[in-house]
Amino acid sequence: MLLLHRAVVLGLRQTCRFKSTPSRLCFQACSTNDSFQPQCPSLTFSGDNCNTRGWRIMGTLLGLGAVLAYHDHRCRAAQESPRIYTREEVKSHRSPETRIWVTLGSEVFDVTEFVDLHPGGSSKLMLAAGGPLEPFWALYAIHNQSHVREILAQYKIGELSPEDKVPSTLETSDPYADDPVRHPALKVNSQRPFNAEPPPELLTENYITPNPIFFTRNHLPVPNLDPVTYRLRIVGPRGQSLSLSLDDLYQFPKHEITVTLQCAGNRRSEMSQLKEVRGLEWSIGAISTARWAGARLCDVLAKAGHQFCETEAHVCFEGLDSDPTGTAYGASIPLSRAMDPEAEVLLAYEMNGQPLPRDHGFPVRVVVPGVVGARHVKWLGKVSVEPEESYSHWQRRDYKGFSPSVDWDTVDFDSAPSIQELPVQSAITEPKDGEMVESGEVTVKGYAWSGGGRAVIRVDVSLDGGLTWQVAELDREEQRPRKAWAWRLWQLQAPVPAGKKELNIVCKAVDDSYNVQPDTVAPIWNLRGVLSNAWHRVHVRVAP
Amino acid sequence: MLLLHRAVVLGLRQTCRFKSTPSRLCFQACSTNDSFQPQCPSLTFSGDNCNTRGWRIMGTLLGLGAVLAYHDHRCRAAQESPRIYTREEVKSHRSPETRIWVTLGSEVFDVTEFVDLHPGGSSKLMLAAGGPLEPFWALYAIHNQSHVREILAQYKIGELSPEDKVPSTLETSDPYADDPVRHPALKVNSQRPFNAEPPPELLTENYITPNPIFFTRNHLPVPNLDPVTYRLRIVGPRGQSLSLSLDDLYQFPKHEITVTLQCAGNRRSEMSQLKEVRGLEWSIGAISTARWAGARLCDVLAKAGHQFCETEAHVCFEGLDSDPTGTAYGASIPLSRAMDPEAEVLLAYEMNGQPLPRDHGFPVRVVVPGVVGARHVKWLGKVSVEPEESYSHWQRRDYKGFSPSVDWDTVDFDSAPSIQELPVQSAITEPKDGEMVESGEVTVKGYAWSGGGRAVIRVDVSLDGGLTWQVAELDREEQRPRKAWAWRLWQLQAPVPAGKKELNIVCKAVDDSYNVQPDTVAPIWNLRGVLSNAWHRVHVRVAP
Repeated sequence: MLLLHRAVVLGLRQTCRFKSTPSRLCFQACSTNDSFQPQCPSLTFSGDNCNTRGWRIMGTLLGLGAVLAYHDHRCRAAQESPRIYTREEVKSHRSPETRIWVTLGSEVFDVTEFVDLHPGGSSKLMLAAGGPLEPFWALYAIHNQSHVREILAQYKIGELSPEDKVPSTLETSDPYADDPVRHPALKVNSQRPFNAEPPPELLTENYITPNPIFFTRNHLPVPNLDPVTYRLRIVGPRGQSLSLSLDDLYQFPKHEITVTLQCAGNRRSEMSQLKEVRGLEWSIGAISTARWAGARLCDVLAKAGHQFCETEAHVCFEGLDSDPTGTAYGASIPLSRAMDPEAEVLLAYEMNGQPLPRDHGFPVRVVVPGVVGARHVKWLGKVSVEPEESYSHWQRRDYKGFSPSVDWDTVDFDSAPSIQELPVQSAITEPKDGEMVESGEVTVKGYAWSGGGRAVIRVDVSLDGGLTWQVAELDREEQRPRKAWAWRLWQLQAPVPAGKKELNIVCKAVDDSYNVQPDTVAPIWNLRGVLSNAWHRVHVRVAP
Repeated sequence: MLLLHRAVVLGLRQTCRFKSTPSRLCFQACSTNDSFQPQCPSLTFSGDNCNTRGWRIMGTLLGLGAVLAYHDHRCRAAQESPRIYTREEVKSHRSPETRIWVTLGSEVFDVTEFVDLHPGGSSKLMLAAGGPLEPFWALYAIHNQSHVREILAQYKIGELSPEDKVPSTLETSDPYADDPVRHPALKVNSQRPFNAEPPPELLTENYITPNPIFFTRNHLPVPNLDPVTYRLRIVGPRGQSLSLSLDDLYQFPKHEITVTLQCAGNRRSEMSQLKEVRGLEWSIGAISTARWAGARLCDVLAKAGHQFCETEAHVCFEGLDSDPTGTAYGASIPLSRAMDPEAEVLLAYEMNGQPLPRDHGFPVRVVVPGVVGARHVKWLGKVSVEPEESYSHWQRRDYKGFSPSVDWDTVDFDSAPSIQELPVQSAITEPKDGEMVESGEVTVKGYAWSGGGRAVIRVDVSLDGGLTWQVAELDREEQRPRKAWAWRLWQLQAPVPAGKKELNIVCKAVDDSYNVQPDTVAPIWNLRGVLSNAWHRVHVRVAP
């Protein structure tokens, strides 16, 4: 709806712009210069009546002949000699300088002139530059309309070469060769193992993150598991085991909850800008939200004969992903959390109404609401209750926080508890750092979340680096007390202070324990670059 | 034990000092000058064999006659003409300039010369300056030894006037006339209603705060309740009531836990230094820790017929303290917390093994571990389960946090949730702001605590205003996972960087959700001055 609304508003705005600059448009439409910027053809074929009418009036006024001749020229060019391009060639056209090409099916389009007219914003379309449109159109159903295809048809410049119509296969000697195909919008931080995040401008486009762009944090190659032969082993209190098939898991009451997952390394890049850290260069996108469904871990553990006991014990998880030595990914959570029905820990087999995608743990993963992503073990193979935490590297020698004074020579991993609940967090997804914003009014958007089921109750936004603050508007999504597992999206529309040439936009969130984010990064810097939750800052210029 | 240890160490140090400066001591001991600083008599009468021996050797060496003559003079002065002083006169002697006087029973002492020799530190003794010693000696059993009284006897200068031997009675027309007598160490922020905090140097002297100096936050006069006729009304689910006597409450299983209470306004003075706020000027002492015992609220509610239900409901508490219109103090907590046995909410009738003191809710108060002090309703009269939060002023129109941008013209109390769990907190109790510290090594001490049962896992201390950090040593008190209801005391011993003339000491704590304290006060400033938990900063000078 928002997108549609924006499309209409943008369309109207474009029409107005044409009306006010008829002579410039006329000159441009007749030019044959290479830097020519035709802003009109997209509107000629728009299904928006208002735009069409505006355009027709202009066409009459400015000389219909010239425009139609141009249109005719473009159509003939595409029909008469369908040029053939390779995917490699398409890939090299990703900027206004090299022209911006995209593909749909086997057709190739030069959309350079359309980019600024894209109703969803130019930055969204640029995500597809040099590659196929399908993955993006699949995310946003708005594109499934005939007039959208009609607009696109105007920009066709040729066809893909026959051998490029199907993606090339990967080498099989590579342990990652069998990894699934990923969405091209993802910003890849590491290809092997695959680690990628959605771009900020897509991150908060939907409250629920679409599966294909949900951030992916893999530690090892993605196992290819057969759902028919898949078995989950639950070790009982006296060492006996339950072996559960997917069908067995389906027999437990199906529990469904919306949960935000965040990697401990989200926003690490802000720490590494300060001083080197070890870890992937996550920007602000190592966080996403989905609707998860599955069996409650407490039900499954009870079935295996486990009970909650006051003594401190841990539930250890082992994945079916493993390194060349056969060591699997592993992690643990306290038994008290696992056995608490109110904590809603899931053995999830559905993500947003679909079977889990392979990158997200097909067929079964753990979902531990309010807890760091690292404990949500994917491709789950084994669950056991142990007197101590998991002995996995990722539980004991990683995912812990340290003082800024600790370095790799002095670090003692046993001195810090493993990260479970995460601290309060927020970030600005729009505008982007370095962007130019319109004078008049600025719209700031972002997300906010806190660990442990603590609800975000307020987001403060500053346009002057933190000197003065305004309260952002939070989305209306329901937050259950003590079980606020999912983020809140927020936005602020505020006048740009007169005469300002730049803005230092800052956001900070408050959760219902009234914990807040720290002001700066340096005092929370740590050698692994985890837990980066200082105020998020974005610097923009104001259009003159 | 610590105190004893320090006394011995200090005694030894004094002995050594005497040995190294015999000629100066001899000169001073013979002087009759008013600014004369006798450092010896206290040691003459010390029960510490080591000190006594040291002194005897010196006495022989330096001329026993002179010293004994001096001693004799002092004793005779006190015996021959016992001068009579009023309490008012004693009160005016509280500094080295006016001399430092104290009383014990009906005797008056001038301890000016002893202050620097006090084994517990001069600042502790100064707390009693101008008043009686008894309240302090009652806190520290170390004083109950004959040699301590012998030391003191040397400083006797007279007696209290007969009419001053018992404290004057208060007027009865005053609604606060019946308030209990308080410990003189308390720093009073408001006399009516009584609000007071312990001085920082006593705050972290013990892990358990002694009852007489536990911070007191009263909203109204203290009711004087008869434990025999006292009844607690518990409203049942269908409106019927349980009326419980103290004996009835004793029949429930007795539950005992150590819990830190903190006022939402703790450290408010740091906010008001920045910009005016409404509220009492609490320093860092509106926080204390006690061992509480009583019936679990969940047991009592269950007895009254209540069950936990998924719908959001609240348990409302009403005190028996009331204003002239008959309005009682009231507050509420979510039913989910009240009914959760793991949340350990108490109807407490014991504090540190004693019946509750009147200032702390005698005979029964609520204790809600991990939650702001304002919900721990004292002098409890009524408990009911309601569909909404308490309609009390203190639940709905106070004890809420707001953005720094909100002022009294724009505040909308309904827009913020009432404070329940508190954010992570820490403060430095030693050294004090403005103090002079020895060059060489500095010892920094303080407390750290977090709400919601989250354990403090680390305290970072900086000596350079936050540029570099060192990790403090935490006390060894047990912290139960998810139920870390009590603070951790910490200390850091660190070399003073060479050449430094001043130190900007800063502390910040991290809890097990890895939440941290914000760097500065301004961005969390709010019109009521609550939730003041920025880094605590203390500026000290280094002795040349």
